[in-house]
Amino acid sequence: MSTRKPQILKGFRDYTPEQMRLRLRVISIFRTVFERHGFEPLDTPALEYMETLTGKAGENEKLMYHFLDQGDREVGLRYDLTVPLARYYAMHQQESVIPFKRYQIAPVWRAEKPQRGRFREFWQCDADIVGSPSMLADAEAVSVLTDALEAVNLGQAVVSINHRKLLEALARLAGVPEAHTTTVFRAIDKLGKIGPDGVKRELTGSGVDDLAADRVVELVTRTGSNAELLAAAESDLVAFPGGVKAVSELRQLAGFIDDLGVPSTSWKIDLSLARGIDYYTGPVFEALVEEPRIGAVAGAGRYDDLVGSFIGRQVPATGMALGLERILEVIEEFDLLPGVSTVANVFVAVFPDSLRESAQIANELRGAGLNADLSMLATRSLGDQMKYAARRGIPYAVIAGAEEVRRGVALIRKLATGEQREVERTLLVEEAKIAVSG
Amino acid sequence: MSTRKPQILKGFRDYTPEQMRLRLRVISIFRTVFERHGFEPLDTPALEYMETLTGKAGENEKLMYHFLDQGDREVGLRYDLTVPLARYYAMHQQESVIPFKRYQIAPVWRAEKPQRGRFREFWQCDADIVGSPSMLADAEAVSVLTDALEAVNLGQAVVSINHRKLLEALARLAGVPEAHTTTVFRAIDKLGKIGPDGVKRELTGSGVDDLAADRVVELVTRTGSNAELLAAAESDLVAFPGGVKAVSELRQLAGFIDDLGVPSTSWKIDLSLARGIDYYTGPVFEALVEEPRIGAVAGAGRYDDLVGSFIGRQVPATGMALGLERILEVIEEFDLLPGVSTVANVFVAVFPDSLRESAQIANELRGAGLNADLSMLATRSLGDQMKYAARRGIPYAVIAGAEEVRRGVALIRKLATGEQREVERTLLVEEAKIAVSG
Repeated sequence: MSTRKPQILKGFRDYTPEQMRLRLRVISIFRTVFERHGFEPLDTPALEYMETLTGKAGENEKLMYHFLDQGDREVGLRYDLTVPLARYYAMHQQESVIPFKRYQIAPVWRAEKPQRGRFREFWQCDADIVGSPSMLADAEAVSVLTDALEAVNLGQAVVSINHRKLLEALARLAGVPEAHTTTVFRAIDKLGKIGPDGVKRELTGSGVDDLAADRVVELVTRTGSNAELLAAAESDLVAFPGGVKAVSELRQLAGFIDDLGVPSTSWKIDLSLARGIDYYTGPVFEALVEEPRIGAVAGAGRYDDLVGSFIGRQVPATGMALGLERILEVIEEFDLLPGVSTVANVFVAVFPDSLRESAQIANELRGAGLNADLSMLATRSLGDQMKYAARRGIPYAVIAGAEEVRRGVALIRKLATGEQREVERTLLVEEAKIAVSG
Repeated sequence: MSTRKPQILKGFRDYTPEQMRLRLRVISIFRTVFERHGFEPLDTPALEYMETLTGKAGENEKLMYHFLDQGDREVGLRYDLTVPLARYYAMHQQESVIPFKRYQIAPVWRAEKPQRGRFREFWQCDADIVGSPSMLADAEAVSVLTDALEAVNLGQAVVSINHRKLLEALARLAGVPEAHTTTVFRAIDKLGKIGPDGVKRELTGSGVDDLAADRVVELVTRTGSNAELLAAAESDLVAFPGGVKAVSELRQLAGFIDDLGVPSTSWKIDLSLARGIDYYTGPVFEALVEEPRIGAVAGAGRYDDLVGSFIGRQVPATGMALGLERILEVIEEFDLLPGVSTVANVFVAVFPDSLRESAQIANELRGAGLNADLSMLATRSLGDQMKYAARRGIPYAVIAGAEEVRRGVALIRKLATGEQREVERTLLVEEAKIAVSG
């Protein structure tokens, strides 16, 4: 028998049944929260034209899995769910109800260096609103984000909020020329990793002068209450209408977030939040947990120009993305969603001379809504079969050997304690239901 | 604003919210059926080493999306979920409970010519049992298959059952040399498409002599009851121990299928069923619907050598795969699962001077478990907002303008009829719950 080596690609993972039960549970919770907020489900292909994925920027191309397909088309695996949404909206605007609120829970692929909480295949859970310029839409994004984290017992996460136009105005105020705006965003995005001095070095290394680099870091690392930070920025930026407007939008956003019932302990203004992605144009958000230190568990922002890059006219849009793998790491580390050990409720043992009876019992139990695992171990002892059921974590077993069949009875055994009782065969299904639900 | 052309790859599809609601519903039903039968969820990566996907055969390589990744590894998008299962099992056998029963619902990719019911990205819903040689495992596969189809009101589908070793023995009996066994499987697999003469031409074209080609087509197209077909095959194949054993296995399988409660109208022995895939070694199954004519909606079989190709020793395995897209086509064509028109129950209108109140109402409704869509159309008339809600298919709207807020009331409007009534603001959530559940 020739053998191929069983191996998995670096940065990719299998999910065992135990891990999958938790994943599916979290996905189901997120789906419920998204639908509670009126977002509709959507799905798009894993593969897209590279032109769709990269647009003019092309900056992330080196992190994309791309190739020539059989028809010589340059194609790539999607890098996020936001660009495909913009492409979808451009193709479906006629039939879509606008503002278009959709969620998508699906894998994306990035050829990044794997590290804790970072994989080459990972799932994003996105909820976006296309077609509304209102800060109410951004508040919805923050609200659905905090509700989703709360629903998986991750309510301790804090959402940082900033505004790209405010950051831009602060950079202008600090004396950074407009041509270096993107440099500022990217450098400040690394503040948590490389510290203020690292950011300054990165800025000066990119040609920003020393004084301006110092000043911009000083401006964005100021501390204070939300109101204090916004008041200070407003008075500093009086000569920068874009900055003043951004402050006013953040104030409006803060009010709506409050109205939507988001606790004030769940979010804060953080002038140093930049977000790495280029397409943001307004408010940006990021949710961090203190422990374990795996970076942002969710992020988001307004991107009023991205949809337009497919349509040629501006279409306002905002939204948020939850990172499933990182959220699951936190849930697993702190056992935030203690779970069931198996999907099956009842194990049905089999015996060579009463196999048909066991198959019928399994069929009846399933018909009554129980998850019944029919033993495949017909040639093995009852003890071996019970060991199998115990390893699977199945709570109850039904045993009906030839002797029980002859006497018109069956046994229900509780695996954890080994206690069992005999019940009339005709009452078996009802008794099993009672045992399982008890 | 520079523009990228919004386009989707041929053979790939977007799923609109309406389509997604149905897809998610069907996936959820399949998940429930799989778990009812004791199968546990599993997931594996979209990308695998090409060596994993192709093994020694490499026959399907031309239909695979494959490329060199950034680390110069030859990788490909998975072609089915069975080969990744075999690879997973080889890597995880120590920690797995054996027999290993898993289900996986996930997309696969094939660079085939798109046609009705055939896409380049499509979802398979697989349930397999690794580690059991028993026909009871094959019967479970048939039972989970028919239960799943029944659960989506596709109970009219009929499962054809055959056995690879029986087909092989019939080919021997007809005088086809052993070297042409695979040729026979592949030619007979096309019987439904190209007819008996087409199969004969394909066989003779591959070097099988005329007489043997005639005889094999005659043997596999015989008609009769299950018992008659098996009895005839048994007496014909008395000199072919492999064929006799296959008949005996099919008889055993038929008994177990019956015990598991599968109606006798849901399946039949069909000696002409071959299945295109090379790795089958025992019973094979295929579910067809008469209308619309889109081919098999599910298929399966025993593959006792596939897992071994990763481990170097034989590990018996069997299972089945439901084709989500084809099943959805049938469901849509005959409206087999009439559905809800939206995920949202209640639309909350907004007004510039009472926006906060509306946001609070949405938050309260969500807290009470309703799916509340908060209007993003603050600058538009109430009429426009009602049109939006109607297009979304949302059944109820809550209206609380400045006047209602002042008076401590709110309106609940039924969108379909336009009738509305005023309720106390303090009773709004309870009243909305009653309206929605009524």
